[in-house]
Amino acid sequence: MITRNKRSAKPEKHAARERLLIAALDIFTEKGYASTSVREIVEAARVTKPMLYYYFGNKEGIYMELMREPFKVLEKILVETAHEELSSRERVMQMYNRIFLLFLKNLKAARLMYSIYYGPPQGAPFIDFESYHLKIKEVTELIVKDGIRSGELRAVNADTLTWVLIGALNFVFEEQLCHRSPMIDKKGLAGMLDLIFDGVASIKSKRKR
Amino acid sequence: MITRNKRSAKPEKHAARERLLIAALDIFTEKGYASTSVREIVEAARVTKPMLYYYFGNKEGIYMELMREPFKVLEKILVETAHEELSSRERVMQMYNRIFLLFLKNLKAARLMYSIYYGPPQGAPFIDFESYHLKIKEVTELIVKDGIRSGELRAVNADTLTWVLIGALNFVFEEQLCHRSPMIDKKGLAGMLDLIFDGVASIKSKRKR
Repeated sequence: MITRNKRSAKPEKHAARERLLIAALDIFTEKGYASTSVREIVEAARVTKPMLYYYFGNKEGIYMELMREPFKVLEKILVETAHEELSSRERVMQMYNRIFLLFLKNLKAARLMYSIYYGPPQGAPFIDFESYHLKIKEVTELIVKDGIRSGELRAVNADTLTWVLIGALNFVFEEQLCHRSPMIDKKGLAGMLDLIFDGVASIKSKRKR
Repeated sequence: MITRNKRSAKPEKHAARERLLIAALDIFTEKGYASTSVREIVEAARVTKPMLYYYFGNKEGIYMELMREPFKVLEKILVETAHEELSSRERVMQMYNRIFLLFLKNLKAARLMYSIYYGPPQGAPFIDFESYHLKIKEVTELIVKDGIRSGELRAVNADTLTWVLIGALNFVFEEQLCHRSPMIDKKGLAGMLDLIFDGVASIKSKRKR
């Protein structure tokens, strides 16, 4: 079997639209949104400018398209997990695991989101990143309250437990964005959640386990 | 008593050096490091360019000075907390409370740090922000291991517990940087840490409390 340079071989396999998305994400992440020009994107994607205008309208359009996909999947995960027939612990574990895998799959887009959210004004069209964060919080809190109501969890403060859980998820996200090699994988996240849930499990539910 | 406009009155009270620091932090945070010029800083501080060069050398110098102070205090907190004669729980609670207050006191500088760390390349001189994060992790882990050794805490995985604790601290930091009003104050942080420590307390230490 011949080992090929995947990085350089990959763009060949993609259609122009896909190549544009990949090139834009690469350059936005490396140079920042503001400093990236349409010319650079089309050159890296080896297509013509009208091709970019045809598919995305302009630089804003290609950025919005890059952001749209991961959040669509996130919404799906949130809706599905809210309706699972599992214990609260299992629902949070499963939801966070899926969100973490989504994050890993879109690491470069995540880096771009952080850059836009925390970085200096770059003229990128507004996306309400916080509303997605709040949705994860809302669903987590619903599940936590279910667990307290059913007696699976001790009667702790639901807000506080929700914050601790989201803090763990948030932390593994950012650990992945570090400039050195990340130390926490999905098993590490599961370990953190287990530790938190072990601490808040009711005696009744501990007996069951 | 006359209510004065504190924002506009404040700079008058400060010496030129102090006024330069305040102006630089304001403009770096609003416009980003790269887009800020020495001219804008000196105009906002109402001093002459040579004054900035005299105190700080250049734009890099004023940035480094802005970053130096909070990290000096952080180091002090870490050294002091590592040697306290308290339970592990109390040491972490005290250390994180002090770090959180330091963060709140330097909220604008923190915003600038996040912007430099996560934002696009802005040409700011390199500061190893991660090394400070790792120091907090190290000290937390030492304290956690003490607690496990002494029997105060259950024999949980020290790494995992350390991550959960830092995740909580990290989360309250970022909640403060949100674009809406933050919901978690120092009491909220203490509640999160209490919930985590209640969960990992040994039966022996629970009896003592």
